[in-house]
Amino acid sequence: MELNPVIETLLNHRSIRKFKDKPLTQDQVRTLVKSAQAAATSSFTQSYSIIGIDDPKIKKQLRAIASDQAYVEHNGYFFVFVADQHRNRAVGEKNGAGTSVLDTTQRMIVALGDACFAAQNMAVAAESMGLGICYIGSIQNDIYKTAEILRLPEYTFPFFGMAVGYPDQNPEKKPRLPFDVVFHQNHYHSELSEESLKRYDQEVERYYQTRTGGTRRETWTGQITRGLSLPYREALRPFFKDQHLGLR
Amino acid sequence: MELNPVIETLLNHRSIRKFKDKPLTQDQVRTLVKSAQAAATSSFTQSYSIIGIDDPKIKKQLRAIASDQAYVEHNGYFFVFVADQHRNRAVGEKNGAGTSVLDTTQRMIVALGDACFAAQNMAVAAESMGLGICYIGSIQNDIYKTAEILRLPEYTFPFFGMAVGYPDQNPEKKPRLPFDVVFHQNHYHSELSEESLKRYDQEVERYYQTRTGGTRRETWTGQITRGLSLPYREALRPFFKDQHLGLR
Repeated sequence: MELNPVIETLLNHRSIRKFKDKPLTQDQVRTLVKSAQAAATSSFTQSYSIIGIDDPKIKKQLRAIASDQAYVEHNGYFFVFVADQHRNRAVGEKNGAGTSVLDTTQRMIVALGDACFAAQNMAVAAESMGLGICYIGSIQNDIYKTAEILRLPEYTFPFFGMAVGYPDQNPEKKPRLPFDVVFHQNHYHSELSEESLKRYDQEVERYYQTRTGGTRRETWTGQITRGLSLPYREALRPFFKDQHLGLR
Repeated sequence: MELNPVIETLLNHRSIRKFKDKPLTQDQVRTLVKSAQAAATSSFTQSYSIIGIDDPKIKKQLRAIASDQAYVEHNGYFFVFVADQHRNRAVGEKNGAGTSVLDTTQRMIVALGDACFAAQNMAVAAESMGLGICYIGSIQNDIYKTAEILRLPEYTFPFFGMAVGYPDQNPEKKPRLPFDVVFHQNHYHSELSEESLKRYDQEVERYYQTRTGGTRRETWTGQITRGLSLPYREALRPFFKDQHLGLR
């Protein structure tokens, strides 16, 4: 495998859930946002926004929504990535154009995608600067409340947060699915390789044993199966509808 | 701004739409996929698949769907990123679990996000290796046909392709929206800065003038406005429904 500093950064990723009490500088925040903005964007629409949060009160509120995870409040900086068709709508309205296309499934996934490309670029940039990151999907736990706190207009969706900061832990790298399970040649192969999954389950089991000092015993397929019976975020569908996203 | 080789790679991104006739090696493909896999994934579900396409017949078929863009057929390698809840479903069913949660909006956006994080990592890895990339959203133009060609099962969605290869062009970097238009402090600011947008429009106009030798005259707000009246992909919503994605 051909390695270089960029690929080393990518392969070295692990989520950081404990940060030192040291805020990012304005310059660092700017570098992160600029890196995010450099990512590809569907048809040049740049259908996302980034909210940078340094108000401790707002961080505390988001922490309460996000399953009370301490690192949502305590980090170097907190970003929220917003799938955003509001800006395109404002531009269109100013120019007297009809904007009804913005409530389509096509535009919804464009905005979701653009938010993700930008976010992943930021994650990579942060890690290259010696910072750690953690995606926070659980700001969706109370999606209406999150939108209210962030004063989000219609045609937007707060996809996830990202906690960034100086790592105060050094977790082991989490093993990924075997290559042949994720990668398909020319066509999708619906059959799962039992052997690959079994080997992977053993690897994941060892990972959790090491990380938890032997207290957590879980395989990947076990975790996936358990996840299927967890409660889901029922408010997301009505929220998308209220925001005029993906209606048709 | 603090620069390093990783951030330089990120800031240097431009889409490449003309590639040399030189295929990627197996080792390069593996490095790209491994880099993609290292990205964050929602709740460790890894809800995406990557289809690597080197069969010229399939490339040609996808090109026909993707507005006949030549670089879909002619490149060093072609990947398709699939939002994938099929694998999780197969794991759950094998373990005798109910899998009805997989048709929710939550699971749909998890799979869309995971596909994007992986793809953006691959884009960054490719560019660090001296390769160029272009996202191909237009494989959605005939989404049912694309799914048929790739033999996609239910609970999957082919989000976009990615053409990768050795660049045979050196396009100028496309300017991004001003920082203050994309970035919001603590709350979303619904008001657009007229002044920032005006400056940006001039910048984009200059970019197109240079790129097209003076023949294309277009601003960003002009392009956004024009895009609002383009036909949209009406089949996406029924496709998501047929695939059992985002039903509730």
